[in-house]
Amino acid sequence: MNQTVPGGQRLYLGIDGGGSKCRVVLTDANLKILGEGLAGPANPLRGMDVATQSILNASYQALEMAGLSCDDFSRLHVGAGLAGVNVPYYYQLFQKWQHPFAALYLTSDLHAACFGAHQGQDGAVIICGTGSCGLAAVAEQVLEVGGHGFPHGDNGSGAWFGLQLLQTVLRSKDGLTAATLMTELLQQQTGLQDTLALALHFMSASATDYARLAPLVFQAAEQQDELAQQIIVAGAAHINAIAARLMTLKPPAISLIGGLCDKLRPYLAPAVQALLVDASQTPELGAIWYAKSCENAKFSGDIKVKGSV
Amino acid sequence: MNQTVPGGQRLYLGIDGGGSKCRVVLTDANLKILGEGLAGPANPLRGMDVATQSILNASYQALEMAGLSCDDFSRLHVGAGLAGVNVPYYYQLFQKWQHPFAALYLTSDLHAACFGAHQGQDGAVIICGTGSCGLAAVAEQVLEVGGHGFPHGDNGSGAWFGLQLLQTVLRSKDGLTAATLMTELLQQQTGLQDTLALALHFMSASATDYARLAPLVFQAAEQQDELAQQIIVAGAAHINAIAARLMTLKPPAISLIGGLCDKLRPYLAPAVQALLVDASQTPELGAIWYAKSCENAKFSGDIKVKGSV
Repeated sequence: MNQTVPGGQRLYLGIDGGGSKCRVVLTDANLKILGEGLAGPANPLRGMDVATQSILNASYQALEMAGLSCDDFSRLHVGAGLAGVNVPYYYQLFQKWQHPFAALYLTSDLHAACFGAHQGQDGAVIICGTGSCGLAAVAEQVLEVGGHGFPHGDNGSGAWFGLQLLQTVLRSKDGLTAATLMTELLQQQTGLQDTLALALHFMSASATDYARLAPLVFQAAEQQDELAQQIIVAGAAHINAIAARLMTLKPPAISLIGGLCDKLRPYLAPAVQALLVDASQTPELGAIWYAKSCENAKFSGDIKVKGSV
Repeated sequence: MNQTVPGGQRLYLGIDGGGSKCRVVLTDANLKILGEGLAGPANPLRGMDVATQSILNASYQALEMAGLSCDDFSRLHVGAGLAGVNVPYYYQLFQKWQHPFAALYLTSDLHAACFGAHQGQDGAVIICGTGSCGLAAVAEQVLEVGGHGFPHGDNGSGAWFGLQLLQTVLRSKDGLTAATLMTELLQQQTGLQDTLALALHFMSASATDYARLAPLVFQAAEQQDELAQQIIVAGAAHINAIAARLMTLKPPAISLIGGLCDKLRPYLAPAVQALLVDASQTPELGAIWYAKSCENAKFSGDIKVKGSV
């Protein structure tokens, strides 16, 4: 993609910034991709210095790939979907950032994902990866539900599934519930047989650690394990509840995004399944759609963030 | 209690060592209390230096209260019920400790609590405080279930109740479940109204933080809040499962210990309630009963710890 970009052309940069990495895409005004970049976390909860540096690093990579330089930062019209900016404090910190861009339009990573999935049209997204949450954007309304972190939120997410599995296995090994195939699968995956060793191993486990266990629940369920099937029914109920809430805005379509989508899809309610479509574009391209929408004054003076309905 | 202790008399020290504090009691051979002491955590998971120093500090306090001195450490026959020594690694570390006592008999804090509750006789205990677990000691058999830490274990505990409350309130505020009185109670207790503020407030909450919320569930249930009642039914089912497992050893009595006992008691199964008796003595006195049992060779050469059935 090393190419010459005409000097006068307006450039767009889309940022999908999460808790572990920051992905950017550089395009022209017609969304033709000119460059891409990838850097560390851009979530302000990890610190503004880290977040802004990740954004600048990834942006510079994208400029370089397009045959451009630092001097071209000032040409970039940037849409940024960032985890954490749904928190007003962090949103305000980012608004105060003396960035080098021509313009910076901020929203949540989830909102950008929704713009990408539906190319800026009305629709909804439900994320079911390590965490879980959902957003519907219909007409001028934006509704975001779920999320809130693990273990107190993110019900039905990968982390949630992993925690249910570990809880169930420990209870089963203690004779407090029936035997389950999940015990053998967990012992295989961790290499630990002993109840105490398993409990200690997960003593300070992160959401990511738990999410790694989620596939085992589905593996056991496929072999007719009843306790695993019960966990999936409960997890799907959480995702169905998110979908039902989003559907109060009557989105024409819903995209499921994240590692657990394919596994969960068959367990969702028929009314939800009927609305499912594949995401059309990536969150970072969605962030560019978002920036263009802001420029088109659709959202002018009213940058929507989580809970802004 | 500042008194003269005859030089030749055998002295006993009982230790109840947990994750936040270490409580000791000094007695003569007839369990007459001569002194007491209180110090920091004696859980080896916090580090052996901290644990052993806490034990020595609390022991010295008890000696001083009895008009004795450091020279009398070597007269002490010590029973220690310590959180964490159910983990073989920590048990071994403690066995290697060059302690100043005449003898040191180690077991889990839960086992010592059972000895205290039933004065060394057969019986069972169920702890339902910040954490939850149970132990039955019948004839030569010891069975310990539950525990394992939060959030992956300790089902039905104070921390578990608090987490269920926060999950339910966040889901309710997101419109994913019905309205609940628990929302208002949580907002009052934390002084936080906003969903995001609540979620952030508990982002790195400890088991102790969550356990502080547990009383709100019972408060809401008393006012006929359905979601709160559902949480209590689920929590009581966990404690009933622990009781049912312990009852396979046919303990003649069960003592419920911990902050949630009184609230949970009415929700337990009739067969469990029929066995409930108040704890007769404290865990630290139980640790002395344990030491005496070891000396009587009842457990000689076979110090029972968690999972030793």
